[in-house]
Amino acid sequence: MGFEYLTNIPLVKAREDYLKLLEDHGFAPKTEPIPVWDACGRVTAHAVYAHICAPHYAASAMDGVAVNAKDTFGATETTPITLNPDQYIVLDTGDPIPENCDAVIMVEDIVKNGDGTITIHAAAAPWQHIRQIGEDICAGEMILPSHMTVSPSAIGAMIAGGVLEIEVIRKPVVGIIPTGDEIIPPCTDPKPGDILEFNGSIFSAMVRQWGAEAVVFPIVPDKFDRIKAMVAKAAEECDMVILNAGSSAGREDFSVKVIRELGEVLYHGIAMKPGKPAILGCQGAKPILGVPGYPVSGIIVIEQLLKPLIDHWLKAPAAPRQYAKATLTRPVVSGLKYEEFVRVRMGYVGDKLMASPLSRGSGVVSSFMKADGILEVPQGLEGYEAGAEVTVRLLSPVEKLENTVVVIGSHDPLLDEVGDMLHVANNGVYMSSSHVGSMGGIMAIRRGEAHAAGCHLLNTEDGVYNLAFMKKYFPKGGVKLIRCVGRQQGMMVAKGNPLHIEKFSDIAREGIRYVNRQKGSGTRILTDYLCKQNDLDTAAIYGYDREELTHTSVAAQIVSGSADVGMGIYSAAKLYDLDFIPVCIEQYDLIIPNHAWDSPMVQQLIDTLKSEEFKEKILALGGYTVENPGEVIPIDGYETI
Amino acid sequence: MGFEYLTNIPLVKAREDYLKLLEDHGFAPKTEPIPVWDACGRVTAHAVYAHICAPHYAASAMDGVAVNAKDTFGATETTPITLNPDQYIVLDTGDPIPENCDAVIMVEDIVKNGDGTITIHAAAAPWQHIRQIGEDICAGEMILPSHMTVSPSAIGAMIAGGVLEIEVIRKPVVGIIPTGDEIIPPCTDPKPGDILEFNGSIFSAMVRQWGAEAVVFPIVPDKFDRIKAMVAKAAEECDMVILNAGSSAGREDFSVKVIRELGEVLYHGIAMKPGKPAILGCQGAKPILGVPGYPVSGIIVIEQLLKPLIDHWLKAPAAPRQYAKATLTRPVVSGLKYEEFVRVRMGYVGDKLMASPLSRGSGVVSSFMKADGILEVPQGLEGYEAGAEVTVRLLSPVEKLENTVVVIGSHDPLLDEVGDMLHVANNGVYMSSSHVGSMGGIMAIRRGEAHAAGCHLLNTEDGVYNLAFMKKYFPKGGVKLIRCVGRQQGMMVAKGNPLHIEKFSDIAREGIRYVNRQKGSGTRILTDYLCKQNDLDTAAIYGYDREELTHTSVAAQIVSGSADVGMGIYSAAKLYDLDFIPVCIEQYDLIIPNHAWDSPMVQQLIDTLKSEEFKEKILALGGYTVENPGEVIPIDGYETI
Repeated sequence: MGFEYLTNIPLVKAREDYLKLLEDHGFAPKTEPIPVWDACGRVTAHAVYAHICAPHYAASAMDGVAVNAKDTFGATETTPITLNPDQYIVLDTGDPIPENCDAVIMVEDIVKNGDGTITIHAAAAPWQHIRQIGEDICAGEMILPSHMTVSPSAIGAMIAGGVLEIEVIRKPVVGIIPTGDEIIPPCTDPKPGDILEFNGSIFSAMVRQWGAEAVVFPIVPDKFDRIKAMVAKAAEECDMVILNAGSSAGREDFSVKVIRELGEVLYHGIAMKPGKPAILGCQGAKPILGVPGYPVSGIIVIEQLLKPLIDHWLKAPAAPRQYAKATLTRPVVSGLKYEEFVRVRMGYVGDKLMASPLSRGSGVVSSFMKADGILEVPQGLEGYEAGAEVTVRLLSPVEKLENTVVVIGSHDPLLDEVGDMLHVANNGVYMSSSHVGSMGGIMAIRRGEAHAAGCHLLNTEDGVYNLAFMKKYFPKGGVKLIRCVGRQQGMMVAKGNPLHIEKFSDIAREGIRYVNRQKGSGTRILTDYLCKQNDLDTAAIYGYDREELTHTSVAAQIVSGSADVGMGIYSAAKLYDLDFIPVCIEQYDLIIPNHAWDSPMVQQLIDTLKSEEFKEKILALGGYTVENPGEVIPIDGYETI
Repeated sequence: MGFEYLTNIPLVKAREDYLKLLEDHGFAPKTEPIPVWDACGRVTAHAVYAHICAPHYAASAMDGVAVNAKDTFGATETTPITLNPDQYIVLDTGDPIPENCDAVIMVEDIVKNGDGTITIHAAAAPWQHIRQIGEDICAGEMILPSHMTVSPSAIGAMIAGGVLEIEVIRKPVVGIIPTGDEIIPPCTDPKPGDILEFNGSIFSAMVRQWGAEAVVFPIVPDKFDRIKAMVAKAAEECDMVILNAGSSAGREDFSVKVIRELGEVLYHGIAMKPGKPAILGCQGAKPILGVPGYPVSGIIVIEQLLKPLIDHWLKAPAAPRQYAKATLTRPVVSGLKYEEFVRVRMGYVGDKLMASPLSRGSGVVSSFMKADGILEVPQGLEGYEAGAEVTVRLLSPVEKLENTVVVIGSHDPLLDEVGDMLHVANNGVYMSSSHVGSMGGIMAIRRGEAHAAGCHLLNTEDGVYNLAFMKKYFPKGGVKLIRCVGRQQGMMVAKGNPLHIEKFSDIAREGIRYVNRQKGSGTRILTDYLCKQNDLDTAAIYGYDREELTHTSVAAQIVSGSADVGMGIYSAAKLYDLDFIPVCIEQYDLIIPNHAWDSPMVQQLIDTLKSEEFKEKILALGGYTVENPGEVIPIDGYETI
């Protein structure tokens, strides 16, 4: 234990110095010959010149007859000329012009006389309707310059020019070495402590998207000699090497030593977050990049430090990055000492593009999957306030962002199902949902960040759901409350209910470990209310402060044995095969702001809620009641539709 | 012979009706299971749910020690607590939390006492520094909805969620059948009348770019039964069939009959140009598209009528098309009866994006390769005037257009070499050159369409090149004349000079077939001047009206035997292994407008001209003299730099 990063080099400098060092060592693309018909998307190594002309012979450009123009001179409407069978030759488009002919007359312009002769009423100009040799491409002409990406039509032009094989830049081969005693190949039943190896699959897919080849080597345990041997092998067989994990300073982190023994280490420690422990090393002209084990760190390091090398090798200008201005929904705090890459979810609400920071945990691979953009916070900046206008690098196309229904609020699995049905019905429409609890959803609607919010808030005074909160937080209206479903709330306990939990007050029993939902969630408000009704002292309930963000994560804690009971909905218990003790039925509705109501995608959402298919799907999940979903619930004092 | 298109259906209607007919017959994507790690870029067939939680066990989020939080209660700076070796367990990030432990203390926050005990100065909160089960992904959670494109990080999330195989939409297989007696496989020595089969390679590359698989079947001769058998086989083995050529009405066009016998023909004849003879047919749910033989027609037909089917099958929204406003450099005349697709070359000159129509011959495959955009002229519109602002669908990214040096004017192969050197030196810079002769180049500069124009115009009064034309066409300056090269002009004749052409006046000899350059080209002006000097009557010179646009195409006519002599430059004669009778040395320069002069890419062009490498390359071509290329030639009355 003990950290020994050598450097905190600014990212831009690290990138430049790395490429320069590698080029000094002879880093340059290799080339290979390939058949032209396989060359689409590849990059020419040299200029390509035509070997033959296209067309390579004088060809008829029309269906008609070939003639010697001199034989037709003088023909007019009033003085037609008749040609004998030996003065013309019938031919189709593309046929070669016969010897002694120098013009073509279109089929429409001749009269067949039935005796083999034809009559024409206009003279033919020499070379009319003839495709000259080389009209398309001349032998010796440069068809494609060096370092150009081959398009489908360029393939056609090259074949037409008699070029059947060209030299292209070989795709660089990136070797990826996963290391770690705890790492095991992907499987469906890992033991505690096992970590599934998926970084190799992520990194392979990334480098393939960038035009390189990827080879994932077998997982190497944390043994210095074995890691060194594998890196040496990879550097021998590949053009670039990713050594995954072991780049920070844990007990068994050998990467930097391995690279030093095999070659050299330029920097260990880059001023970036995530990704600080990256190692920029090489063996001669072959880059060896030490990449942190956390997937998000690894993704950022590879994108920031390996992709430039691949782009440089491939000689094709990298696809330009797309940026957009967006409004931050929450503050982003960053460190002065590093450049930070914050994943954000994005969506247009009204005309405004909103960016919501996602979990910054570098182990949370799903956050990268959900990200629509990356907010790059420069080194030397402490971050941004909520509401700030920031420039975000887009991972999703603008067209997708424009057509995404943004749902923020209470979590229910039905939202995912609705999103799925919406997208299946119209694959140009998407749904993005964030789980921040019912109160979080109300706040998001108030701030104009969402098209819809899931909400199930109990008014403890009259036992009615949602209505009182609407009036409190939207006193002037401007929103609609849309009926969604009734949900069975209850206590989730281990299969067979080994601790005999039967009534709500059992959660306070000695020896019972409770797991709670976060404050502001509808389930938490319900739980607090039930505690009060049952005269339970929440401070005395073990685990009452342990908060999870979703029903399913509460269920997951119980099924794993790290908690005994938690409040949640029936569908979550069913999913995890837990026992379920019903407590009450609550109303789960959607709040939709009026400004979003008329948009076609929101109307599609409503149509989905109203559909028979939705009803069937929801009832199959169990624990729901459905009565007129999609209906607007009238609220006193709100405008009617 | 005789045309019998049945229909002139508007393109949009044809597209809609075709999809509807196919869907009525059951046209729908097939799916297939694949390993998750191979799924990048593929589209999910169904929603994907996690099988296990990630993390699947409670894990340490830090390097440190695991403890039971209760053992630490009460620890403060002033009342530290010491833990015995059986009260803590050392662990690294990612290690599982041991039985009976419920908190992690970071390594930085403990004091090792040397006797196996550790001291802490703060209490641990239960569950601190522990990654809870399901923090990233919960079992049962929807990881990806249906019909979503799989990203690299989604692969990671799925593996983390214990999903190792998913059902994706199978890539549709497009069978491509080339037909025609005259069609032969690609080779380098075709006989007259042979047409090289390259449409199959173009179409394959296109459909692969769109996400489909392609199979090119063997070339089928123009025999009804053989074509029918091959189409039946392709329809059996593939999901979609392209029947290439034979869709118009020549002597041997069987396509429409074949499709009718095997299935049905919806439309034959679409209101589009090129591409009118397209056939929209099917056998049950399998589309069979009859595609014209000319490559450009075929490309447009496939893009307009097959791509929508592939997009529909793949369920992924098609990449949005990029459009840009541009100024037309020349008029475009179109027919009222059809929608026309005009290929244009584009470039930014100043702030203005210019679009120059390319050859509209549908046999000219190189025009598609050179095209940066497609001007779509709607049905019912007669076209556009020169200077009109039009909306162009972009084939090249805007970044490329912004960094393209647009050269319009007299042709010289050295321009291609300079463009190649420029791009090799900086792969973000491109050159596009159009060959319209010296006067055409001057006009292009005057109209603000080009960054540079090649020019070799002889003032017949003083024998000096270019200067007089500069003063005449740019009387107020605003441009610079850049010294380029001296070129050997002469007569190109067949190898061995069989017709004994020795002096210029021999071009007028009886039986000699001349091939000329177009009016306005420097070579034509020189030739006209030489005729005058030699008292030759140009009307009496056979072929004086036969005009070619480049030196190489003149050489190509001579080498093919369709002409005996033509004026041109030495390098063209050398390229085609022709004999060359020198006539004079002319000055070939570049005109560059002042507004373009300071742009980095134009300065790179000048640097290239000044380079040693350019000199070497040019001298190796032969027929050139080089003296201070890249130098600005001073002109009286023009501003100095």
